[in-house]
Amino acid sequence: MDKLLENALKGDELSISRVLTRIEYMTDEGMKYLEELSKKAGSAHTIGITGIPGAGKSTLISSLIEEFSKRGNKKIGVIMIDPSSPISMGSFMGNRIRMQDKTMMNNVFIRSIASRGHLGGVSSEAIMLIEAMDGLGFNPIIVETVGAGQTDTEVVSSVHTITVVNVPGTGDEIQALKAGIMEIGDIYVINKAEYPEADVLYDEIKFAIDSGNWNGWKPLVLKVSALKKIGIKELVDAIETHEKYLKESGKFIKKINERRKKMIELIIRRKIDEKINEVINKEVLDNWTDLLTIVNRIYDDVKKSL
Amino acid sequence: MDKLLENALKGDELSISRVLTRIEYMTDEGMKYLEELSKKAGSAHTIGITGIPGAGKSTLISSLIEEFSKRGNKKIGVIMIDPSSPISMGSFMGNRIRMQDKTMMNNVFIRSIASRGHLGGVSSEAIMLIEAMDGLGFNPIIVETVGAGQTDTEVVSSVHTITVVNVPGTGDEIQALKAGIMEIGDIYVINKAEYPEADVLYDEIKFAIDSGNWNGWKPLVLKVSALKKIGIKELVDAIETHEKYLKESGKFIKKINERRKKMIELIIRRKIDEKINEVINKEVLDNWTDLLTIVNRIYDDVKKSL
Repeated sequence: MDKLLENALKGDELSISRVLTRIEYMTDEGMKYLEELSKKAGSAHTIGITGIPGAGKSTLISSLIEEFSKRGNKKIGVIMIDPSSPISMGSFMGNRIRMQDKTMMNNVFIRSIASRGHLGGVSSEAIMLIEAMDGLGFNPIIVETVGAGQTDTEVVSSVHTITVVNVPGTGDEIQALKAGIMEIGDIYVINKAEYPEADVLYDEIKFAIDSGNWNGWKPLVLKVSALKKIGIKELVDAIETHEKYLKESGKFIKKINERRKKMIELIIRRKIDEKINEVINKEVLDNWTDLLTIVNRIYDDVKKSL
Repeated sequence: MDKLLENALKGDELSISRVLTRIEYMTDEGMKYLEELSKKAGSAHTIGITGIPGAGKSTLISSLIEEFSKRGNKKIGVIMIDPSSPISMGSFMGNRIRMQDKTMMNNVFIRSIASRGHLGGVSSEAIMLIEAMDGLGFNPIIVETVGAGQTDTEVVSSVHTITVVNVPGTGDEIQALKAGIMEIGDIYVINKAEYPEADVLYDEIKFAIDSGNWNGWKPLVLKVSALKKIGIKELVDAIETHEKYLKESGKFIKKINERRKKMIELIIRRKIDEKINEVINKEVLDNWTDLLTIVNRIYDDVKKSL
């Protein structure tokens, strides 16, 4: 076996980092690593932490890492999806700084994905990283997303346990943005429970869930304070209860197979998207009167390039 | 010419709506409409209104519509990109309700795009709608986006005048989210100027811009209150100044050509993505040990299907 992959499997942080970078960029080497790791993968519990900016996801993840560590988890993986604009190429430094003391901990490996400016790029990277980290023995793997937009949806629907983080007292439009992620959760967390409005929000969400018809898993609702470390044990209990439910019902493996199907789809899409870009960039487009003719010509050129 | 398209060109709202729907879904008819309209397009000034949820974009757009109407614009188009999750298929009803009195106005046509759950879908729809509305004689065309994520980036970079809407007094992570859209603006608007913190934010942005080196257009910074209708005239003045600058520098047409190139790319991408989905959905995937073999096999199947 390749030396770098061997060292990564032994837990060497720099080697892990290099292996993951090669996979993210889909180099030939990276794809071979992914294939090797995919053979070893299939046992990690993947946990999505999803919520709007300002919901306190990073602080919550810090607390989760601590609690999981206390329970004996020796290799915890964290993937943070960074919604910053590809134009700026900036990144959520705030997040990273707050998490820094955790990256120092020996049993945690944190990876941040920035938007690369190509469609499908972030989704494919995130799902390949989940697969690779799974194969490297990380368990659980925590994935942080904002929850809005197509990228996030593809990633969120690939994890085992979707934890939706809410905060009391946010505005009108933010409430609407939340609505989109209010139907997908396995666990709902009301963060910043120290605020008096938290109870109202808790009651609202609890009522909505109690009014629904649930087949199999009925979502849990919990109040926590990530900052004051209240309710974190109960949250990890809930996450582990959901994991147990998935395993007993056979849905744990099913989810992993779905994730892999999505991964293959995204890999192929990205390969083909790269070809489309190559072809388009070579085209001289200055006469726009025959749109369909242009589309058909370029479509044929792409087809030939595959 | 087709009767429906003819009526749409005459300004019949229902016909416009139907033409746009056929284009959004890329039916054969729709693509022919787009080709016809593309021949007539190329003169509309396209304005992006970009900012985080809660920045007050909808209210600002209402005020802009009023001001543009006062200045004699008879056919104003508005495209709102709805970031709701494809899982929920929900939509920003709040937005729509607040805008309703404007949709009643004869000279405004508002179209909302919801996420369709396929990659590249929203971007292609939005850019095709801009082209179609341009061909239908709408001018200006106002496009509302959140500004984060890949979809928004593709759309925002296709408009003439990018107006970034900021609000004072938002939290830490939201500030970071903003950072991504802080490098792209032609005009920066500090909304909710009635808040005392607005001055601080204004000074910060003004300082950042004054410190930069600008070739050609130096971004303008304005304080407005969309709710109290303060500074709206000045904002429309700024938008028209930027339009004039683009026309005099030859960048107005250049931007339209870039938008069309992007449109063609997205149309082809969507056609091919549909093929990828078809092929993937037919595959039985249960043996995951030979990832690269599976990827290559499906890649070949997609190639054959094009």
